[in-house]
Amino acid sequence: MALKISTRGTIPPFLALDIMGDVQRRVTEGADIVHLEVGQPSSKAPQKVLATAREALLTDAIGYTPAFGLPELRARLARHYRDTYGVAVDPARIAMTTGSSGGFVLSFLAAFDVGDRVALACPGYPAYRNILLALGIEVVDIPVGPETRFQPTVRALDGLAKPIDGLIVASPSNPAGTMLHDAEMKALCDWCRDHEVRLISDEIYHGITYGVQGVSALAYDCGGVVINSFSKYFSMTGWRLGWLVAPEDLARPIECLAQSLFISPPTLSQIAALSAFDCREELDGNVARYRKNRDLLLEELPKAGFDKLSPAEGGFYLYADVSDQTASSEDLCRRMVAEIGVAVTPGVDFDPHRGHRFIRLSFAGAHEDMIRACRRLKDWRRN
Amino acid sequence: MALKISTRGTIPPFLALDIMGDVQRRVTEGADIVHLEVGQPSSKAPQKVLATAREALLTDAIGYTPAFGLPELRARLARHYRDTYGVAVDPARIAMTTGSSGGFVLSFLAAFDVGDRVALACPGYPAYRNILLALGIEVVDIPVGPETRFQPTVRALDGLAKPIDGLIVASPSNPAGTMLHDAEMKALCDWCRDHEVRLISDEIYHGITYGVQGVSALAYDCGGVVINSFSKYFSMTGWRLGWLVAPEDLARPIECLAQSLFISPPTLSQIAALSAFDCREELDGNVARYRKNRDLLLEELPKAGFDKLSPAEGGFYLYADVSDQTASSEDLCRRMVAEIGVAVTPGVDFDPHRGHRFIRLSFAGAHEDMIRACRRLKDWRRN
Repeated sequence: MALKISTRGTIPPFLALDIMGDVQRRVTEGADIVHLEVGQPSSKAPQKVLATAREALLTDAIGYTPAFGLPELRARLARHYRDTYGVAVDPARIAMTTGSSGGFVLSFLAAFDVGDRVALACPGYPAYRNILLALGIEVVDIPVGPETRFQPTVRALDGLAKPIDGLIVASPSNPAGTMLHDAEMKALCDWCRDHEVRLISDEIYHGITYGVQGVSALAYDCGGVVINSFSKYFSMTGWRLGWLVAPEDLARPIECLAQSLFISPPTLSQIAALSAFDCREELDGNVARYRKNRDLLLEELPKAGFDKLSPAEGGFYLYADVSDQTASSEDLCRRMVAEIGVAVTPGVDFDPHRGHRFIRLSFAGAHEDMIRACRRLKDWRRN
Repeated sequence: MALKISTRGTIPPFLALDIMGDVQRRVTEGADIVHLEVGQPSSKAPQKVLATAREALLTDAIGYTPAFGLPELRARLARHYRDTYGVAVDPARIAMTTGSSGGFVLSFLAAFDVGDRVALACPGYPAYRNILLALGIEVVDIPVGPETRFQPTVRALDGLAKPIDGLIVASPSNPAGTMLHDAEMKALCDWCRDHEVRLISDEIYHGITYGVQGVSALAYDCGGVVINSFSKYFSMTGWRLGWLVAPEDLARPIECLAQSLFISPPTLSQIAALSAFDCREELDGNVARYRKNRDLLLEELPKAGFDKLSPAEGGFYLYADVSDQTASSEDLCRRMVAEIGVAVTPGVDFDPHRGHRFIRLSFAGAHEDMIRACRRLKDWRRN
């Protein structure tokens, strides 16, 4: 019997998650590992969020919500856009999603047909590429590096050989932590408007920035989709709750897709998230820790030979060029975890072409762990 | 500016959910509505599940889990298959999913390419059709009715004009509540094996059956995918947790897809679900209520003129042929909710071709509500 397996379903594994599994096995076996590979905050959800969830377990039926989520949460997010960005957003355009992952699946399906071409910065978050592949959308790589702070530019878009249907941007980016500044975001939005290209703006690291505030694509109306999440700044990864802001023309198609593909996002997470906006102090405390971690790594890593680091302005990652140390960053990562118990992520997840020259270091963990990682790396370098 | 909207993203709305929104607005305005339109248990999750969730909020970080879910929950489900069905399943083949919805998206993507043909019973759960459409898979309707207890047959499959790549079966079915008996399931599995057709067996209403136990497609190895969920028998809809059992050849493709499309299913729901298997008494109490509700409706509805009812052997729906009362069941539903405050679902969601002749009645609610609904319907009929 040889049943067929779909071609499109055969997408690459998300190596970071495979490696997390490998690291987890070592931990189970008693290894002392410092975790710089994880893509999530080490902090729990804020106390008030946890208390609200506990209360809701007593009082709420935890049934389905509307496909777009609880109206009061959508209204709260509209207020968030007004307060934080000074942008008026109709709550009717805001959809709660099952993590930002759900937002990507829904917006890609609603905006792009099979064979459409969508451009993205390379390196970038691997799931963009993998979801696009699974949905039959052609991935158009825009190679980026330190010369453009790992962000796509209008110049790069003008230089593409063939027209595109969509553009994904991420600011702060994963894995480089770099941001699109105001004029750059405006230029990209203008370009998309002029070329009738659907912009997808991934803003899930907004709130975790160091000295600059993230610019939302909503500031420059170009018919784009904004994707966000409670996973990062709000420290609620496992709760699987995100949101998207749809342009008017996509709201109804996205709603119909959400009804059938998701029914509704997790209900308890939605109820709990209503309290997340009252926890600024606790959440900003997390950001202060990330900043301290970042500052330490930027100072200490060069002493361990990692001196080509991305200029992270936000998020909690550094992307390091290790091409002077190895021809295979995957090999370097395996040696690093085996020899000194420091887990990081090889760059191939983020860039299939040049990722073998890079590693990603996450500084979402405890400050003490950053100190230990730096010490181990410096000792390793000396030996 | 005219940005394109994808063709595939333009799928029909899930009318049941739209109607729930309309009914909800009437309730907010003070209307006294009896809810026979809802596709979810009126009961909460079992007490021990709620207690486990409350405890986990204190003790667990609620971070990401592996893409396939918590190993201990997958092991518990393997035991469930052994205990309930006498079937040995390797936990490596069991994936926790974001509701059964996540299981459908993942298995359809892994098994079928754009242009593949997948057959399903019509009437059936609308999301099958809508997800297939969104993923570019051709839907092959198998019209079914009372003569085959609303289930597809080998005879119908043999009669298809062109070969198919996949077959979706659901037992107990939504909307008819009818089941595939042992010999019927075996015949369909054999047919799929002989014709190299990938079977997708939706078993989410297993556990809610009246006098017969559901047969799992796992009993007849044909390389199919089994989809299930904690939403129905375990009464955990808003928790958005389901699972699938993949054939060996699809497990890794599905894992890669799950990593990128979902990251992981909701963590708190997974932890809480570990306790669900200790709550048989409470859960079987729900089933006893459904049975009592079903028996009442089967006795009383004919007195109100609804006498062509599906022979529901499981689940919590009756599918009623109302073609002698109306040419448009949607119109009948609107009048029913407006005139006597009884909400039910029109059949067009489940069958775009003949659904205007049918309505679906859910008996997942309180027994008192069933009594009220029958009284109102009988009074309506008299007037």
